[in-house]
Amino acid sequence: MEFFFQVKKVEEVLSAIEKFSPLGKENVDLTSAQGRFCAEDLISQEDLPPFSRSTMDGYAVYARDTFGAREGEPVVLRLVGEIPMGVEPTFTLSSGEAAKIATGGMLPEGADAVVMLEYAEEIGELVEIRRPVAPGENVITKGEDIPKGGLILAAHTRITPGHIGLLASAGITSIPVFKRPKVAIISTGDELVPPEAPLEPGKIRDANSFSLCAAVQEAGGTAHIMGIVPDQEEALYSTLEKALMENDVVLISGGSSVGTRDYTLRCISRLPDAELICHGVAVKPGKPTILARTGNKAVFGLPGQVTSALVVFYIMVRPLLLHLQGACGKDLFLPKVRAKALRNIASAQGREDYIRVKLQEDKEGKLWAEPIFGRSGILSPMAQADGLLHIPSESEGIYEGEEAEIFLL
Amino acid sequence: MEFFFQVKKVEEVLSAIEKFSPLGKENVDLTSAQGRFCAEDLISQEDLPPFSRSTMDGYAVYARDTFGAREGEPVVLRLVGEIPMGVEPTFTLSSGEAAKIATGGMLPEGADAVVMLEYAEEIGELVEIRRPVAPGENVITKGEDIPKGGLILAAHTRITPGHIGLLASAGITSIPVFKRPKVAIISTGDELVPPEAPLEPGKIRDANSFSLCAAVQEAGGTAHIMGIVPDQEEALYSTLEKALMENDVVLISGGSSVGTRDYTLRCISRLPDAELICHGVAVKPGKPTILARTGNKAVFGLPGQVTSALVVFYIMVRPLLLHLQGACGKDLFLPKVRAKALRNIASAQGREDYIRVKLQEDKEGKLWAEPIFGRSGILSPMAQADGLLHIPSESEGIYEGEEAEIFLL
Repeated sequence: MEFFFQVKKVEEVLSAIEKFSPLGKENVDLTSAQGRFCAEDLISQEDLPPFSRSTMDGYAVYARDTFGAREGEPVVLRLVGEIPMGVEPTFTLSSGEAAKIATGGMLPEGADAVVMLEYAEEIGELVEIRRPVAPGENVITKGEDIPKGGLILAAHTRITPGHIGLLASAGITSIPVFKRPKVAIISTGDELVPPEAPLEPGKIRDANSFSLCAAVQEAGGTAHIMGIVPDQEEALYSTLEKALMENDVVLISGGSSVGTRDYTLRCISRLPDAELICHGVAVKPGKPTILARTGNKAVFGLPGQVTSALVVFYIMVRPLLLHLQGACGKDLFLPKVRAKALRNIASAQGREDYIRVKLQEDKEGKLWAEPIFGRSGILSPMAQADGLLHIPSESEGIYEGEEAEIFLL
Repeated sequence: MEFFFQVKKVEEVLSAIEKFSPLGKENVDLTSAQGRFCAEDLISQEDLPPFSRSTMDGYAVYARDTFGAREGEPVVLRLVGEIPMGVEPTFTLSSGEAAKIATGGMLPEGADAVVMLEYAEEIGELVEIRRPVAPGENVITKGEDIPKGGLILAAHTRITPGHIGLLASAGITSIPVFKRPKVAIISTGDELVPPEAPLEPGKIRDANSFSLCAAVQEAGGTAHIMGIVPDQEEALYSTLEKALMENDVVLISGGSSVGTRDYTLRCISRLPDAELICHGVAVKPGKPTILARTGNKAVFGLPGQVTSALVVFYIMVRPLLLHLQGACGKDLFLPKVRAKALRNIASAQGREDYIRVKLQEDKEGKLWAEPIFGRSGILSPMAQADGLLHIPSESEGIYEGEEAEIFLL
């Protein structure tokens, strides 16, 4: 197949993500579900809570009996029992009666409210009630949290501690989630040596494999570092083939030089049924980015400069990894805040810019973003950054004091 | 020892966190350092990069030679060699000379800039340069990223993919980090059964253990679920003792009823050298929260309502877990955004409120927070929430359209 140079907008690349299907399902237990994405709508087979419960220590009553009660003119009810925690009451409450109940206790039939301990006083077999309660007061009614047949968790929802509490309450202990993407990382470059190797003159250590590994982990994927491949088409192709057998996504970084970029593109074009989604993206940094699809697997060609590779990762690779593990909507992206620019920042129309910034809070709690300038070949500005300030493609930059969107790193 | 009822402000509880020391150090490798907190200042033993490198494919030159070059009036230099990737040049560049160089290539001695390929043309052994370059242009100079002896990573910094790239570049493959806190979770209550058990009338399933387990994991701790303890002081005390032997923090949840709260407090008071930090916090939800210290270990008594327990976790337990693993400053807290309230929300002076909200973005990208009302005994509002809106203690509430701070869940 032949490939043309296809420069795309970031939004076009992001919408191409939909061409990939989320990965298969697996079941995890309640203690391993945090942060995963639910693969099916989960319905409660029961009312939650399964019975009406008191939310206070006090007396279960028939609310209507307490109307008009006040300090000095209490309503007097007959104490007919005490409801131990975790036990079904053996009696039914009638008008004129009250039963002692603890927080979490099961309301007896007939009772529809609870009077707090401090507004009641036991006198032998009687209870004086000094305040009225409305029906339902201090009670969580059966099914109030989730009724039987109600939706606990919709497919594609990110599972939080709150959801896990609901699932535990409903007795659902095995949860269907989308699998995590397996991501192979290949670094190319004759100048690269592994970080632990001695450094000969002219060589530098492979930073990209490890930066990208960490970024993949943060994005919920499992990373497989394939090592350093020399600048040769055959060596790259055989590593790429091997990586694709065992992984869902392959990241090839390096290839800043025109020659290596060509190898990468030729290797991708040799893959069966390869579809080139982009070759070049209107974004800075990240212009030389390549994305191709083979079956349901993705191959990214990332810039060789580690800062550029990381920015492309956050803006385009990360959303794909999240889509593959079942995320949708805002869960595809890094959390966003708005902040005012501390300086003018120029940009070019027709291209998006992602500027590394430090964030500061002023006395009123407003956020200000200070750009950290530095070439994309050096890493320390990226390491210092709190976020990436986004300048949309239709803008020529932003002025000092103007508000912009910042993705938090 | 005797304990008084010590109601504290949230900020007092948060400043008491400083009484605990961060946990011990351990070494992790580059592929396991993401999200951990660095335990020592890490200094580079080398200049990064170790030599001046080209950032472009082009020609290494002595910049002064190119001054005045332009289209139609090129400067002509003598081509003295080509520098292969990853190899130290064997020659020195003199004025009047140029050498072909690829992106990432090592500049020969004498060269101080690189002319991009597209502004040069080889003609036999000569190169025509059609644009001037400034000294340092298209070059990353030796030590520009981090000079030898420079700080790569300060102690207590959260390690990001950018830092990991720098560490790999500097050949640092074993990284000292603070240990993750081990957190024991105890649920108390005669009404509780494990999620997988059959549900008899009057019983409910233990949601807190699993919600809190997920929250501990999200906060970087390792969670140990100790199971359900009946409402008896001795049973709780022996479980608490066991939990403290093997863990750094113990969370006791349950005990919404006054009786159980008393047990919890009595158990804590029996611990050797127990210091009560708070018994009651001016916060809603979360008033009955207990925090005590024994040695460098923390015991929290959390409210029994699972929503209240989670809010207290996010506001007070999570910052402690992060402090123990070496975090400081804003890293102790959930990420924050500001949003306008979609409705009036009342509060009481002298107490902080944390309101569960859903966030919506309007057409201008501004955030609006919609409160999700629901009693703290039910979980679904917490499961639906995007964040917790904070009403400070000096406020009586916020009006529709007023801006507030929201911690993102």
